[in-house]
Amino acid sequence: MATFPFEISAREGKARTGRLKTPRGDIRTPAFMPVGTAGTVKALYMDQVQGAGADIILGNTYHLMLRPGAERVQRLGGLHKFSGWSGPMLTDSGGFQVWSLAQLRKMDADGVTFQSHIDGSTHRLTPARSIEIQADLLGADISMQLDECTNFPCTHEEAERSLALSLKWGERSLDAFGARDAQTLFGIIQGSNFPDLRERSAKGVTAQGFGGIALGGLAVGEGHDQMCATIDMTMPHLPDHMPRYVMGVGKPIDLVESVARGIDMFDCVLPTRSGRHGQAWTWDGPLNLNNAKFAEDTSPLDPVINCPASQVYSRAYLHHLFKAGEYLGPMLLSWHNTAFFQALMAEMRAAIAEGRFEALRATLSAGWENTKSKPKAES
Amino acid sequence: MATFPFEISAREGKARTGRLKTPRGDIRTPAFMPVGTAGTVKALYMDQVQGAGADIILGNTYHLMLRPGAERVQRLGGLHKFSGWSGPMLTDSGGFQVWSLAQLRKMDADGVTFQSHIDGSTHRLTPARSIEIQADLLGADISMQLDECTNFPCTHEEAERSLALSLKWGERSLDAFGARDAQTLFGIIQGSNFPDLRERSAKGVTAQGFGGIALGGLAVGEGHDQMCATIDMTMPHLPDHMPRYVMGVGKPIDLVESVARGIDMFDCVLPTRSGRHGQAWTWDGPLNLNNAKFAEDTSPLDPVINCPASQVYSRAYLHHLFKAGEYLGPMLLSWHNTAFFQALMAEMRAAIAEGRFEALRATLSAGWENTKSKPKAES
Ligand SMILES: [Zn+2]
Ligand SMILES: [Zn+2]
Repeated sequence: MATFPFEISAREGKARTGRLKTPRGDIRTPAFMPVGTAGTVKALYMDQVQGAGADIILGNTYHLMLRPGAERVQRLGGLHKFSGWSGPMLTDSGGFQVWSLAQLRKMDADGVTFQSHIDGSTHRLTPARSIEIQADLLGADISMQLDECTNFPCTHEEAERSLALSLKWGERSLDAFGARDAQTLFGIIQGSNFPDLRERSAKGVTAQGFGGIALGGLAVGEGHDQMCATIDMTMPHLPDHMPRYVMGVGKPIDLVESVARGIDMFDCVLPTRSGRHGQAWTWDGPLNLNNAKFAEDTSPLDPVINCPASQVYSRAYLHHLFKAGEYLGPMLLSWHNTAFFQALMAEMRAAIAEGRFEALRATLSAGWENTKSKPKAES
Repeated sequence: MATFPFEISAREGKARTGRLKTPRGDIRTPAFMPVGTAGTVKALYMDQVQGAGADIILGNTYHLMLRPGAERVQRLGGLHKFSGWSGPMLTDSGGFQVWSLAQLRKMDADGVTFQSHIDGSTHRLTPARSIEIQADLLGADISMQLDECTNFPCTHEEAERSLALSLKWGERSLDAFGARDAQTLFGIIQGSNFPDLRERSAKGVTAQGFGGIALGGLAVGEGHDQMCATIDMTMPHLPDHMPRYVMGVGKPIDLVESVARGIDMFDCVLPTRSGRHGQAWTWDGPLNLNNAKFAEDTSPLDPVINCPASQVYSRAYLHHLFKAGEYLGPMLLSWHNTAFFQALMAEMRAAIAEGRFEALRATLSAGWENTKSKPKAES
């Protein structure tokens, strides 16, 4: 297994900035990966994703194995060629979507059998099959081990049993992955909100020898504060030299607070999903373009973001597009949000390099306080 | 009223090519106008529309007067600024959509009162109000007179009564339009399929002194052959020096056969509407990308069309996008179809200029024979 060189060039507090060097290009960290669910970042052209500043995108094993099918993607030349993204690509293991989308899922010690949410057909994922799909068939640059996603909240006993299974599957994933020159594999830490379990999982995954380490089981309803607490309890047990990835995170304030805690990589559907629903993320917080107050607002959406979607179109026009249900509304806001999230990452990278990250964090976190997710039970 | 200079540079048979010169730029004729229904050509960026080769787009008075409202578009700087299209723009009168979309419409001698299909609110269009919306509020470069759209089929008596009303409304439209330096107004010929009525209408509209003449009442279910017959019966009564526009037409074979009969301008939603549904138009006829036969077809959609949507993406990828219901499918096929329609117009212009239009027409019309629309009753 290749371990991609990870060069940290500057630090401030626990935050760090650098480059994860892959054969398909460098990933500037901290990095936000736009999600290309089914071989497309929804409503965007790939050159817009790249132009927005993304170095790497994420593909979903679950969606792609069901449609068009992993073997078909391979016959079509692999996911890079199929989707038209030539930079680095990370794929998830499929486990999270099996847990959140599939019907009639049945776990056993060796994997999970589930029915497609699309057509009810039966499929099976094991650690080895997930690696085969990701690394062999899709051709991911970075694959993720299959893990078991625990419900939130869950008991200590459930979390303990689950992380033991994930550790075992991590080992099987590494075995299946074997030696590869140009591809790497990340392990995943589980353990819900329990400090002893997060520690055990972190130490276990670290010892297994992955090319990077992800924190799983976050952004599942625990809320912003618990997410930060879980990161805090996990980080002391992670090696400094490995890239750290928080899966499925998140809102801008989540990104800032996670970077402050030493996280290097993120992915989330939020920029495109909220863009499809009329929500624009800006330095001043989110705007809902459906709101009637924008109906005659001739100012551009967000002139400080270096993206045509942000600078060229008026808020009044965007409001109209959403009211009229026009394709161009989701297209423009998905583009803007993708550019904004990349601008946020770029600004955090620059701030760390220039020793002003804590000042930036203080400003942003104060301004975005009211965007913090509440725990599921309270919300 | 300005009469835009119309310079015919070459002819072959009845076909002609030239330029309609507007203050916002030349329109190369024969011209196909992409339809920007509600201030956006659906699923396209305006620079894609322009890059595809369109010199002019069309806006819909009916849609824009209901949402966002014509007065609002004016307050926002007019339709060019609002929508981001800086070239020439033609608007229709609203009459056709009142006839085809609105609820509870009530015609009288002075106009039509109708309820919005969006929210049921009551609105009124008169010849003068339509001109106010188009020329004053939206700021169209070319406005269309309000006419009455007759049902198809209809009796001679109905068609005769209707065209008399349209002639009267044409006069009122010209009065309302008045003197304008940089904007022009087109009249509309009606008369259904009746030669005597088309002749009467053509002569009447010609005598009224518009800046261009449209043939209305086509593409309403009469089928390709009847459309051609109606154009044939009308053309002898039209002056040579004025631009001739067939409204709402059409399929590629309709465009070819209409150009052969001396038509200069067209508009149709077909490129974007069929693109949203997975249909791609090519020199070899239409392709349905939903078809399973494309699932592993790695060839580009249509490499001879000079457009990224046509050249860069595989048919297999497009098939997948439509199966998965991804935004990018409609985005790419709307783009390709728009580029194909512009390529068809460019090729017809070049063929006329080079004296090979009849040969081109023979090839294309033979190849596209099976795409001819049948009359509504038969289809
Ligand atoms: Zn997320
Ligand atoms: Zn049409």
